[in-house]
Amino acid sequence: MKIILIGASGTVGQAALEALSPRHEIITVGRTGGDIQIDIERVENIRAMYKQVGKIDAVVCSIGDGHFGPLSEMKGHHVMLGINRKTLPQINLVLEGLDYVNDAGSFTLTTGVLNRDPIIGGAAAAAANGALDSFVTAAAIDMPRRIRINVVSPEILEASREKYDGFFRGHRHVSNEEVGRAYCKSVEGALTGRVFIVE
Amino acid sequence: MKIILIGASGTVGQAALEALSPRHEIITVGRTGGDIQIDIERVENIRAMYKQVGKIDAVVCSIGDGHFGPLSEMKGHHVMLGINRKTLPQINLVLEGLDYVNDAGSFTLTTGVLNRDPIIGGAAAAAANGALDSFVTAAAIDMPRRIRINVVSPEILEASREKYDGFFRGHRHVSNEEVGRAYCKSVEGALTGRVFIVE
Repeated sequence: MKIILIGASGTVGQAALEALSPRHEIITVGRTGGDIQIDIERVENIRAMYKQVGKIDAVVCSIGDGHFGPLSEMKGHHVMLGINRKTLPQINLVLEGLDYVNDAGSFTLTTGVLNRDPIIGGAAAAAANGALDSFVTAAAIDMPRRIRINVVSPEILEASREKYDGFFRGHRHVSNEEVGRAYCKSVEGALTGRVFIVE
Repeated sequence: MKIILIGASGTVGQAALEALSPRHEIITVGRTGGDIQIDIERVENIRAMYKQVGKIDAVVCSIGDGHFGPLSEMKGHHVMLGINRKTLPQINLVLEGLDYVNDAGSFTLTTGVLNRDPIIGGAAAAAANGALDSFVTAAAIDMPRRIRINVVSPEILEASREKYDGFFRGHRHVSNEEVGRAYCKSVEGALTGRVFIVE
């Protein structure tokens, strides 16, 4: 398959890349690295990316940023940061990409553990995840040409253990291989409308 | 208890009002009706409302608008409409209201069926619901002074049967009384971080 992978340089993106690249042609997209460099937060860049790449079989996206901080100091703009940097870009990838994905192709988005197993300070980021999980659940029944859509929601990766040390006490750390399998299941399987939890 | 009810004139708001008003002092807030009239989409109006009302025991909100339409014609701004009109105002009510809610008081927000039992054309509205459900789940563990937060997620109400006829075929219609009980459970009970599904 010909697959666009946005966010390939991130920890989760690496896991997806390792799992998919042995069997597929991967076009990597990043803010500063990869085959194509774009700022995914601008919808016109998403359109230009699709125009450049042309028809593909699958789109995989593992990008996102968000605010972490105590609720008592949180404001609406903190919540919107995650919506604008994680939720909306991934949704735009779907909405702008429908005409470029071949029949029975797929979109695979990425969220995370924060909305099902919350941590202190994570309410804004949880909202961004929840919006995406729900969008995918609903969009799946409205896809044209048997195109599928799923989301991978991984626990913290082994590779991020040091980065997040202390914030996710008691959480399991999952391996690149475990996370990669979820992307393979979504891209190469037949399921749609699923939140693939890796934990 | 002294309770602010935002969106009291809506179908769901009416159900909450009927259930809570026999035992509590309710200050109703609406765009054009109620004791206080504000446009809830402007955060400065939320701040002014709290300043006017002063200390309260509970905030109940049942407002929201969203886009419905086929995914193939959907754009990012359609998704943001629900985020800006349903998700963000309800989250702002919480974030701006923390200092006004008495110890062990509560916030009760409102979503709906669309993200757990989707319909064609409902992906944008599902995203708005999912963001709120997830925010509440995560915010509950980060609340100061034993303040609680829940969300009521009702099926289509009997009172809206004609309005939505055809869009929710096969869905159960719930009564005002059933929906009202969920708000009572949230406001007068002890649970927090819950999505109270009424179906």
